[in-house]
Amino acid sequence: MIKNIAIVGGTHGNEYTGPFLIKRLCEQNIAANYSTFNSQFLLSNPKAYKNNLRFVDIDLNRSFLNKDLNNALLGDYEANRAKVVNQLLGPKEAAKTDFIIDIHTTTANMGISIILVDKNEFNLKLARHLKSKIDNIFIYYMSPDAYGEKMDQSFLVSIAKYGFALELGAIPNSIIRHDILKQAEDTILASLAYIENMNQGGENINQGGENMNQGGENNELEVFEHLKMVEFPLDKQGNIEAVIHENIQDRDYLPLQKGEPIFEKLNGDIIYHQESETLYPVFINEAAYYYKKIAFSLTRKIILKIPRTA
Amino acid sequence: MIKNIAIVGGTHGNEYTGPFLIKRLCEQNIAANYSTFNSQFLLSNPKAYKNNLRFVDIDLNRSFLNKDLNNALLGDYEANRAKVVNQLLGPKEAAKTDFIIDIHTTTANMGISIILVDKNEFNLKLARHLKSKIDNIFIYYMSPDAYGEKMDQSFLVSIAKYGFALELGAIPNSIIRHDILKQAEDTILASLAYIENMNQGGENINQGGENMNQGGENNELEVFEHLKMVEFPLDKQGNIEAVIHENIQDRDYLPLQKGEPIFEKLNGDIIYHQESETLYPVFINEAAYYYKKIAFSLTRKIILKIPRTA
Repeated sequence: MIKNIAIVGGTHGNEYTGPFLIKRLCEQNIAANYSTFNSQFLLSNPKAYKNNLRFVDIDLNRSFLNKDLNNALLGDYEANRAKVVNQLLGPKEAAKTDFIIDIHTTTANMGISIILVDKNEFNLKLARHLKSKIDNIFIYYMSPDAYGEKMDQSFLVSIAKYGFALELGAIPNSIIRHDILKQAEDTILASLAYIENMNQGGENINQGGENMNQGGENNELEVFEHLKMVEFPLDKQGNIEAVIHENIQDRDYLPLQKGEPIFEKLNGDIIYHQESETLYPVFINEAAYYYKKIAFSLTRKIILKIPRTA
Repeated sequence: MIKNIAIVGGTHGNEYTGPFLIKRLCEQNIAANYSTFNSQFLLSNPKAYKNNLRFVDIDLNRSFLNKDLNNALLGDYEANRAKVVNQLLGPKEAAKTDFIIDIHTTTANMGISIILVDKNEFNLKLARHLKSKIDNIFIYYMSPDAYGEKMDQSFLVSIAKYGFALELGAIPNSIIRHDILKQAEDTILASLAYIENMNQGGENINQGGENMNQGGENNELEVFEHLKMVEFPLDKQGNIEAVIHENIQDRDYLPLQKGEPIFEKLNGDIIYHQESETLYPVFINEAAYYYKKIAFSLTRKIILKIPRTA
């Protein structure tokens, strides 16, 4: 039973879709449509949003490790804000909120990405359901040690046991588009309807989801597991000296093979992909990662088995 | 005769195409390809570029009015930077630089826009030539009183007698894309080739350009003249309370008629266009104008007659 839900936007203050959609969902009073859970809507980084910045001091969506939430000496704006958000929605490990959707956008062509930081059965079943209901959905899993923090996650959604970060793109930062807004709204409303039905007994939604799958695939879920980040080629001063090659631009979630061109350098030289294993790039040309010199991330496609029934 | 040319990038520090292209053109030493003029490459707002901001204090590309260049009391970073750039490339009214291209990008779907702030004969002929050589080019004219500053322009390119702002999109801020980069490079190289040929006598280029036009159109140039800006609908607190309607999103330079939907409000209400005259929206959903609450600009399509020969 999921009793308390939070829809969060503006964790990165220059990603405008979340804050705007939250306003719209409040204006349209959609919380009144559900009888089995309470809904809360939260602008998580108001100062970054007001200033049209991803963050003021540090990335809020990397500030939810238990060790940081428990360290009162951290002085950055987002270090404090994380504690406030954790107090509101959490506290992490014993949270009053059962389920969180944290709305993000990307300049990469990632469609509707459901980013899981916990592959518990509920999350996987919800992901499968969403994939069966909505086009252009990809499931992206960040394992807890991906950032070297075993058994813990630094992401906002890790406050609650269930939920996901919703990553939508391609869209520039600092604007709102009708189409991306609708994708976000559709995904959120489908998630809330799924939870409402599950809370009421669960059979209908799950059967609906299964009927839309063909053959015996409905107990399998295609998931892209985060593996590593790939840096741009840098010059001796540490500046980016290449552009992402047209061969991979906008081709998020598509297979990348050894020998394919991935970068074109300032002098015209082409850099080729060297990995033998077929991997799947994501966050290709994400604006927020330029300061970290990151060109894209690589994922491995895996098939997870999940039980057929809810 | 055009003797001194400047290619400028990073006037808005979060528009990465210009600075990157300038590096590439320097790396490839393209200046050596031209014998009749000197080329200079300038990163115009290095502090904004380093900090990934459109500007530090004020918009550099609105800081070149004579009255501001001559006012030593202005203390903002860009007010000082404008004086430095004016010293390097100008001084305005008696500039050592004859021709400037200032490279910009936009989140609006404006293709390759040649923005003129002076419709002198050379500028119009160059624009016509570029339109004949390169696909997806639009000519956008800002008259000097568009911002209420009669007889003067606040834009960087107004330092020199000839030249244009090159506006490319759609592209998010803070990234580089191979396709937009190539469009910028093609347009700049075509401009430099035109000038080289004109300096050498001018017949070849001009005939080439004319041959590519069909019928009697080669003494006419389609120009979109800036008319006014259109604000988003605002709530009582002055916040944007609507999204640009799908009917006009991405439809820059296409006719907008009375009665067409232009906004969808948070509560679902649709706002319709009220002007009787057919006008042409541009800068639709430009990220940089949200803080000014500007949704798009409106232009009037005009046909300018220009002499057939160079």
